[in-house]
Amino acid sequence: MFSSSSSLTLSQAILTRSTPRHHHQHHLSPPSLSLRRRRHLSISASVQTPPKPSTTDSSLIDKSVNTIRFLAIDAVEKANSGHPGLPMGCAPMGHVLYDEVMRYNPNNPYWFNRDRFVLSAGHGCMLHYALLHLAGYDSVKEEDLKQFRQWESKTPGHPENFETPGIEVTTGPLGQGIANAVGLALAEKHLAARFNKPDCEIVDHYTYSILGDGCQMEGIANEACSLAGHWGLGKLIAFYDDNHISIDGDTEIAFTENVEQRFEALGWHVIWVKNGNNGYDEIRSAIKEAKAVKDKPTLIKVTTTIGFGSPNKANSYSVHGSALGAKEVDATRQNLGWPYEPFHVPEDVKQHWSRHTPEGAELEAEWNTKFAQYEKKYPEEAAELKSIITGELPAGWEKALPTYTPESPADATRNLSQQNLNALAKVLPGFLGGSADLASSNMTLMKTFGDFQKNTPEERNIRFGVREHGMGAICNGIAHHSPGFIPYCATFFVFTDYMRAAIRISALSQAGVIYVMTHDSIGLGEDGPTHQPIEHLASFRAMPNVFMFRPADGNETAGAYRVAVLNKKTPSILALSRQKLPHLPGTSIEAVEKGGYIVSDNSSGNKPDLILMGTGSELEIASKAAEELRKEGKAVRVVSFVSWELYAAQSAEYKESVLPSSVTARVSIEAGSTFGWEKFVGPKGKAIGIDRFGASAPAGKIYKEFGLTAEAVVAAAKAVC
Amino acid sequence: MFSSSSSLTLSQAILTRSTPRHHHQHHLSPPSLSLRRRRHLSISASVQTPPKPSTTDSSLIDKSVNTIRFLAIDAVEKANSGHPGLPMGCAPMGHVLYDEVMRYNPNNPYWFNRDRFVLSAGHGCMLHYALLHLAGYDSVKEEDLKQFRQWESKTPGHPENFETPGIEVTTGPLGQGIANAVGLALAEKHLAARFNKPDCEIVDHYTYSILGDGCQMEGIANEACSLAGHWGLGKLIAFYDDNHISIDGDTEIAFTENVEQRFEALGWHVIWVKNGNNGYDEIRSAIKEAKAVKDKPTLIKVTTTIGFGSPNKANSYSVHGSALGAKEVDATRQNLGWPYEPFHVPEDVKQHWSRHTPEGAELEAEWNTKFAQYEKKYPEEAAELKSIITGELPAGWEKALPTYTPESPADATRNLSQQNLNALAKVLPGFLGGSADLASSNMTLMKTFGDFQKNTPEERNIRFGVREHGMGAICNGIAHHSPGFIPYCATFFVFTDYMRAAIRISALSQAGVIYVMTHDSIGLGEDGPTHQPIEHLASFRAMPNVFMFRPADGNETAGAYRVAVLNKKTPSILALSRQKLPHLPGTSIEAVEKGGYIVSDNSSGNKPDLILMGTGSELEIASKAAEELRKEGKAVRVVSFVSWELYAAQSAEYKESVLPSSVTARVSIEAGSTFGWEKFVGPKGKAIGIDRFGASAPAGKIYKEFGLTAEAVVAAAKAVC
Repeated sequence: MFSSSSSLTLSQAILTRSTPRHHHQHHLSPPSLSLRRRRHLSISASVQTPPKPSTTDSSLIDKSVNTIRFLAIDAVEKANSGHPGLPMGCAPMGHVLYDEVMRYNPNNPYWFNRDRFVLSAGHGCMLHYALLHLAGYDSVKEEDLKQFRQWESKTPGHPENFETPGIEVTTGPLGQGIANAVGLALAEKHLAARFNKPDCEIVDHYTYSILGDGCQMEGIANEACSLAGHWGLGKLIAFYDDNHISIDGDTEIAFTENVEQRFEALGWHVIWVKNGNNGYDEIRSAIKEAKAVKDKPTLIKVTTTIGFGSPNKANSYSVHGSALGAKEVDATRQNLGWPYEPFHVPEDVKQHWSRHTPEGAELEAEWNTKFAQYEKKYPEEAAELKSIITGELPAGWEKALPTYTPESPADATRNLSQQNLNALAKVLPGFLGGSADLASSNMTLMKTFGDFQKNTPEERNIRFGVREHGMGAICNGIAHHSPGFIPYCATFFVFTDYMRAAIRISALSQAGVIYVMTHDSIGLGEDGPTHQPIEHLASFRAMPNVFMFRPADGNETAGAYRVAVLNKKTPSILALSRQKLPHLPGTSIEAVEKGGYIVSDNSSGNKPDLILMGTGSELEIASKAAEELRKEGKAVRVVSFVSWELYAAQSAEYKESVLPSSVTARVSIEAGSTFGWEKFVGPKGKAIGIDRFGASAPAGKIYKEFGLTAEAVVAAAKAVC
Repeated sequence: MFSSSSSLTLSQAILTRSTPRHHHQHHLSPPSLSLRRRRHLSISASVQTPPKPSTTDSSLIDKSVNTIRFLAIDAVEKANSGHPGLPMGCAPMGHVLYDEVMRYNPNNPYWFNRDRFVLSAGHGCMLHYALLHLAGYDSVKEEDLKQFRQWESKTPGHPENFETPGIEVTTGPLGQGIANAVGLALAEKHLAARFNKPDCEIVDHYTYSILGDGCQMEGIANEACSLAGHWGLGKLIAFYDDNHISIDGDTEIAFTENVEQRFEALGWHVIWVKNGNNGYDEIRSAIKEAKAVKDKPTLIKVTTTIGFGSPNKANSYSVHGSALGAKEVDATRQNLGWPYEPFHVPEDVKQHWSRHTPEGAELEAEWNTKFAQYEKKYPEEAAELKSIITGELPAGWEKALPTYTPESPADATRNLSQQNLNALAKVLPGFLGGSADLASSNMTLMKTFGDFQKNTPEERNIRFGVREHGMGAICNGIAHHSPGFIPYCATFFVFTDYMRAAIRISALSQAGVIYVMTHDSIGLGEDGPTHQPIEHLASFRAMPNVFMFRPADGNETAGAYRVAVLNKKTPSILALSRQKLPHLPGTSIEAVEKGGYIVSDNSSGNKPDLILMGTGSELEIASKAAEELRKEGKAVRVVSFVSWELYAAQSAEYKESVLPSSVTARVSIEAGSTFGWEKFVGPKGKAIGIDRFGASAPAGKIYKEFGLTAEAVVAAAKAVC
């Protein structure tokens, strides 16, 4: 399930990947980069490309744009499922971005310094697949387009970074993508400030995103965009596909706010492209203007017609999320003058786009040369940056983790967590993060660093404000920027409810975000039931690809961080106590990776009279109860279930050694819902927990009233024995 | 656990409650109401009250405001826990609201036509408790203030409507309160449009709210406020406590957007009160201006000093969430010239506030008279309105529920749900709701009604736009406006992740919202893993006070609606299929209230060879497998677990009759996480489910690839038998 090597995605290591591509460079016409750069800033409709200048007239661009439209139409039609409307409307901006503006290498989708593109309106993914196909990405060949939305295809129903190289993040749930884009742009700004030198700009890319009306309505988008404005992410350029249509009809029925004014209020530069359907020059000059504004992110509102070209369905919700139908496909072919078979890319369009493969290789090669020079001049910085780019963990990093003995002073696991965060900050170059306005409660400040802010972007403490959902999605973006980033974020455990959609995308998209979730139970006391998690442990134990840790003391906290850092493809949630806990004999950093293990035992032959189980702050209670029962002559085993997921991955033999099936006298205690504990306590055991909401009172009083005491465990043990 | 009578909160019935208060009216100086009304609009600092005009000079107001401040300081100090900063800063606006502006009856906190107040910044609840105390509410007496944040007190750490009469909704999780306030204001606008007559304005109240920087940062607040602007909720007046401090320090570090401009963009009227610390006249005239703007909600930005009066802690985060400490309390007493003992309310302040009890009784009595006239003139409307006010369900409403037989055409439960919604819309006057831009997918439109919009607020289909979180919280507000409201809201089941914090508050605050959640599994097919719920059933089964229904067909869908409508204090979530399902022999509307029940069985003597269990779309698969196995001579029972919570509430005898402990051969099938099924299948059984993320492909293909088939059930059954 995890190993230290799993954290290194070799395919993402620049130096290894770029080497085999070098031979491509020899095919390149030399001036591509500088020409491309000039082109970015051009407002002329005529786009000059080295191989075939004659092919860049505006009719070819129309043809390219229509190719994108029909690839989307045809794929949705063949699948009889999908969303043709957005690709048809956004094809022009998509074309300008991928053909004229963006810098990328189709042969290495993971090239570090590439421009990032996020389709926040992920349902329109056929736009992105069509663009990747035209640009020459191996991941989206014609047969992949024909397999749109089919079992195990590279072209699933929404963009999934883990399925399709060239897709940066996983979108579809609205608003997530633009927040990811904020994270990607933050990562660029941070790395640029940290590593660029006056004589060598080694980090330098833009982040582009397309979002629709749906994304704009979602609160998460406002949270993330407010932060983007606050941070002055000048290299974030977002296109707002303003098509006036959402699933329920005209946006008039639910969305009449002034989006431009709102974004200005959020500190963005705002541009309006009135003709997004074929105003290529307008789109180009908007991008030029956006790039010229360096201290603010830019929103380019592009007014488009959803389903552009469909004579009977354009500008209606019916084109949003269903195939056009054979008849309307024909009518659209007629209307746009498209005589070709489904999935056909006309030869001149193909040729026009073909330059991106050699040019991309050239871009990467040029950057590699630059990096080699950088490495010579600045070996230390280069080593740090390389670690972030490749995800390779520095040798011996684990030694930085603090260790504890039973004699160490009792402490809250949130404080012990802070010791770990500070230790890791010193050894992991890509470690950064912060809290949703609870840094002093979550104990998440790294003492060796200042605040990441507009004018101090090289720092690593991120101040997210009270924006949990945006925070989670921004961290997903950071994690997906480069394999060596290990972002963490924090709030009270109960407020994972605010960011659950982002946490789920961490899990699905394999973003190794670390969620530092303090105040993990009724143990927080007086704030009461609105602040006391009950069902949250169970709710994450049921979620795929998440490590839900509830460490009991210092060593378990360090052990949880160790597993979290080692597993870059699985997010970790640490539920941490507000209240002080003793360091228990029998816990260890290493044992955490088993998920469940024996903490203490006075039985022999794997035949205890009784097994007591607990997690986090209740492991102490279980241990106390065991002491009592042992005094009475019982052979009692105490088991910590610090991570159910890791335990589930152990062998049947190991599990039998921890929970022998012959021992049915079992009691668990955890200050949360008992839901799911039946698995461990079995039909004859007893699960002590909380199957109601909490209460406002001092923590000790609630524990007592709710029956979470050693006495209750002893009584339950006697009842089940 | 539920009964039809539980849905009627008798204490909330206006007519019964108002009667015993009538004798108070005789003590009233007659002109109180008209005087009060004039006062609302007065910008003079001098507030005249009938009993003691001389007590209304500004020094008395200062004294009243300081009383509020010190009640908060003293309660937090005694508890050594809580948030004194906000009450100290917001005491002036609190005073003006409760003493001069708001119309309420302390002796009947549930009087229907009262102005509503929501403290969205719920951590500052001592402000609200102090105001309720001064205003004469029984629920907050001096001894209650002294029990602040203690076990079973009426003054918990955050405002809880179910603990403290006078508190409208449950706040604390930031942003929820302002969204609840939008729901309360929507409810008023809807009822006023529906029931007011040119000669009788029977519904007429304002909704006030105080929100802080934290609420402003939360995405949910932007969602709800965008809708409030869209709907033109002119009687919603929100105070933004602009104090520049959040927990992590100055808001400068994370929150530099232009809030006023954002709210203007959202369609609000915005006013800035520059001196919130003692600018009473500014506050008064802002409220006057806000009331004059009838087509827009108003945001009054009130610049205050957090912890006003504390010489060493004011204007710092240290006063936000901790007791001042004895020394600083003394210093603050010195500074504000407060010679009194803790919890003391000076006699003149007490006397000044004492008029609210008789005046409130007068207000209610006057309204009751008005209602009696209304009832005479408009008996039908009055009966409807009364049903909404009292929560009494119309006799025989259950007969409206559709019923089905195995011969009824197979259909998706989302469509069957729509039949129920339309049936209930006809018989339940307080039934209203809508979808987050998925009405045509969730099948939630009520055909007999139009859209609730700015200019058609009497209609009942609510268009929430893509704002799931705001939608949930707005529905909580509607539910808490009047006991007869039954709001429903809808999106895809997976997007409960976006609104989970609001659903949790439904559960905690006992808001009987109905969550219509369609596309409930991999059965939605091509949209893929971002859209396919896996862990969601388990995550809600673990949440207290929620009914998590997964109906299998028409009768179970109707049965789920029946339980949902009958249980106003428990929210219900209905997980509904996108795909068609047959109507199974053996299901019934009535059986649903048992939560788990036998659908079919060919055994005798409660001794089947095997028990197959399922929910929703997989009950059909379990039934098919049972047929196969019966053909092979097995005695097989099929059990539907449509609601685990309802099953858990059944007697041990009933449970033994469904799942006899002697039968350990048990197989469950559900297209979701197997987490929690161990409880029913036991250690010797087998749970078939999905413990990974879904996939993008046609639904049938995914079911087959994931092993959710009758063949797999048969094979598992043979393995466990």
